[in-house]
Amino acid sequence: MKTAAIIGGGVIGGGWAARFLLNGWAVRVFDPDPDAERKLADVLANARRALPGLGNVALPAEGELSFHSTIAETVAGADWVQESVPERLDLKQKVYAELQQHTPAAAVIGSSTSGYKPSQLQDGFDNAARIVVAHPFNPVYLMPLVEVVTTPVNPPEVIETAKAIITSVGMYPLHLKKEIDAHVADRFLEAVWREALWLVKDGIATTEEIDNAIRYGFGIRWAQMGLFETYRVAGGEAGMKHFLAQFGPCLTWPWTKLMDVPEFNDELVDLIAGQSDAQSGRHSIRELERIRDDNLVGMMRALSANDWGAGALQNAHDVARMSEAGLARTLDEVADPSQPVLTLNRVVPLDWTDYNGHMTESRYLDAFAQSTDRLMEIIGCDAAYIAAGGSYFTAETHIRHLDEVHAGQPIQVRTRVILGQGKKMHLWHEMYEGERLLATGEHMLLHVDLKTRRSAPPAAHIEAKLTQLAEGQAGLPTPEGLGRAIGAPR
Amino acid sequence: MKTAAIIGGGVIGGGWAARFLLNGWAVRVFDPDPDAERKLADVLANARRALPGLGNVALPAEGELSFHSTIAETVAGADWVQESVPERLDLKQKVYAELQQHTPAAAVIGSSTSGYKPSQLQDGFDNAARIVVAHPFNPVYLMPLVEVVTTPVNPPEVIETAKAIITSVGMYPLHLKKEIDAHVADRFLEAVWREALWLVKDGIATTEEIDNAIRYGFGIRWAQMGLFETYRVAGGEAGMKHFLAQFGPCLTWPWTKLMDVPEFNDELVDLIAGQSDAQSGRHSIRELERIRDDNLVGMMRALSANDWGAGALQNAHDVARMSEAGLARTLDEVADPSQPVLTLNRVVPLDWTDYNGHMTESRYLDAFAQSTDRLMEIIGCDAAYIAAGGSYFTAETHIRHLDEVHAGQPIQVRTRVILGQGKKMHLWHEMYEGERLLATGEHMLLHVDLKTRRSAPPAAHIEAKLTQLAEGQAGLPTPEGLGRAIGAPR
Repeated sequence: MKTAAIIGGGVIGGGWAARFLLNGWAVRVFDPDPDAERKLADVLANARRALPGLGNVALPAEGELSFHSTIAETVAGADWVQESVPERLDLKQKVYAELQQHTPAAAVIGSSTSGYKPSQLQDGFDNAARIVVAHPFNPVYLMPLVEVVTTPVNPPEVIETAKAIITSVGMYPLHLKKEIDAHVADRFLEAVWREALWLVKDGIATTEEIDNAIRYGFGIRWAQMGLFETYRVAGGEAGMKHFLAQFGPCLTWPWTKLMDVPEFNDELVDLIAGQSDAQSGRHSIRELERIRDDNLVGMMRALSANDWGAGALQNAHDVARMSEAGLARTLDEVADPSQPVLTLNRVVPLDWTDYNGHMTESRYLDAFAQSTDRLMEIIGCDAAYIAAGGSYFTAETHIRHLDEVHAGQPIQVRTRVILGQGKKMHLWHEMYEGERLLATGEHMLLHVDLKTRRSAPPAAHIEAKLTQLAEGQAGLPTPEGLGRAIGAPR
Repeated sequence: MKTAAIIGGGVIGGGWAARFLLNGWAVRVFDPDPDAERKLADVLANARRALPGLGNVALPAEGELSFHSTIAETVAGADWVQESVPERLDLKQKVYAELQQHTPAAAVIGSSTSGYKPSQLQDGFDNAARIVVAHPFNPVYLMPLVEVVTTPVNPPEVIETAKAIITSVGMYPLHLKKEIDAHVADRFLEAVWREALWLVKDGIATTEEIDNAIRYGFGIRWAQMGLFETYRVAGGEAGMKHFLAQFGPCLTWPWTKLMDVPEFNDELVDLIAGQSDAQSGRHSIRELERIRDDNLVGMMRALSANDWGAGALQNAHDVARMSEAGLARTLDEVADPSQPVLTLNRVVPLDWTDYNGHMTESRYLDAFAQSTDRLMEIIGCDAAYIAAGGSYFTAETHIRHLDEVHAGQPIQVRTRVILGQGKKMHLWHEMYEGERLLATGEHMLLHVDLKTRRSAPPAAHIEAKLTQLAEGQAGLPTPEGLGRAIGAPR
């Protein structure tokens, strides 16, 4: 098991702790705040609610969390040290002096700093080569972006180790080519923030109207394509050069007040805080955090379905986790083909629940469909085979909803091949939470020719593997409920 | 039927045309470009692909589209005129001079201008009171935001009419308190654009890296909460004032180059265009448009599921459309309770399809579950009843997938109550595309006490209405396939 040392356990440090823990790391925390354990528990509760179900493959078992009273003790055995102390250079340098003494030589030290350049953190320390900026975004347990900023003092192997570790916990290391104040993303945030302060101060729009201008418009555009790709599309067939030619002249127009900064006095603070209360005050911060996480998970999962943007990152993370989660991709990888095959191993995500507070009925079929897809890949009906024109269509489904399950709970599906002969594939899925049987799914599928959209025999190697599974499992007792009709007596 | 006159039918004007048409308006277009019809057909094809399925209620029948060779002819009978000609004030004023002569007195004239203030468009015209800025965002057929900018010359009734019409086509009118160059949203875009140009020019990050910095981080945050609400959450329990106190000092730090503007020369244009090609050149613009629309629809529908942000707007639009779409909310509204009840009338959305190119199996159950929800509301098992602790849980489901259906196709579900007695509700759903039977869904539900999570009798008024439907429909012939088990002979 790998070990992360978290120096500073506030909103950002706590988010890092949660990210590492839920990805199976041991996490050791140093934070002199007497409330640190409670505050971290709050962040961790949010993270446990949102992250494990974000992807379609179960994460490893949670690592161990411990709190320590000195930096020296905290960093013992660490593979990664993450510093998230307040943004004061003198304070950070004090921490780095201690880290220099005690951090294991092979560990990477990442700083969450928003504004300082890595050269400012490395300056004067013997272990400068191991110190990088690793700037995350709140909530750290859900947002994939980490700005990695290095200097010529960092050797390539430190940079590669940092990027590999960040990737391994489902995040995206954006390695900047040069160091610069505030890195990249916060420069945009600062620019928008300055403009927004003017708009509120000048009485053009309230904080709520400004938020609406963002989230009903360019915010949703940027969530999936960012700035340049969005404009590339807007420019149309004429191309990016044409778009630039059109947009270029605006640079000389009075479209921003950013040459100037509003005076940040009490009057402006009261104006903004008052408008923010009117806009969002009906929700507590805890409620808003959960609403935010529900939305982020829903939108990121929508992007996963399209294998795009943050969703594509998540999909790659899922694929990397399959083997450890016990999910086979070929028949050879199935441990014992004479037993039901594990075809789903995941956590119920936030967007699978309904107004009754439990997993909604259509997601039972969604889960069983994912299991069918897994079984199809195992017998060789994979993306390449489907692209070549063969696939299976479901003709009939029978689901018994036997028990409830809630967001955040782990579910597994085990699958039996009842019949695999000619065009027919008759499957029996059982969904469990631990030992608790939640549902059964009985499905009749037909192999089809995707050109004619009619049933047709599968390729010989598909049928052979399907038959092998059906025959191997033929000795198992008949599942209770197989062939049952609705309303029939038990 | 209402009529919109579209003056200028490019990407933005074409998007307006599609938005009005798909919401049942007659649309009359003026555009001197000889390619105008083809270009508008392209936008309309994209819009037809993405918009009708965005919500959960069918839109009205498409309006009629016509092209005209003069502005005078185009605006005949118009309720709304939308001007989207290029951003040159002399050109716009020429158009407004013609509009002054021919536009019906009651019509509102909206301008899509990104940069001009409404006073600049009204100046010197007799019908200035009817002229407002109505600035939309690309793609206009999906993005809900419209910045409405007015002057003291516009009477309240013109402003209210403009806002009502924009709302009626599923958009959000953001009415600014004062006019200002570039309104609100484009000021943010301009600020970010300037910062981005510096980052590319200075070699800090490429266009792709900048897009990743946005879409893996704050872009997804902003898509649902915008700027201020995001920071309110980040500030935690200490509140917005505390957050402002922390963030305030940054205003004096060198976190942006926006006091200065990079020279927009050939070298910079080539640099950006080259990086954009490397980033996105493997997709044609047409492909990128569809990827963008797939993502926007998926994310907006994720927000709809949480009734938040752009999704909450869509839900309100859906509710407003129910009656016209033939969907009852009470038993009194059901036209003929002795016949199967229309419980779903919608279009298959983009996010309901799979790798086989058709509606994926779990969405059949999703659609049937929406039908069950509609029937529950009709018998009085509505949100208030559920909040008070009673609901129905599905115990068993049998679906026959009889035919394929694709994104963009309209589907309807009609529902029969086979049995409604005591705790039991036995439903039979039939899903059609026109006359074509796509699937049947047989469902056994049990009434539950949400506190004990056990089955319990429903309230008397619920059972009475359910029984009324079951008895009213008892004379209908037994549905083919009722009570069937998988694998049973037909």
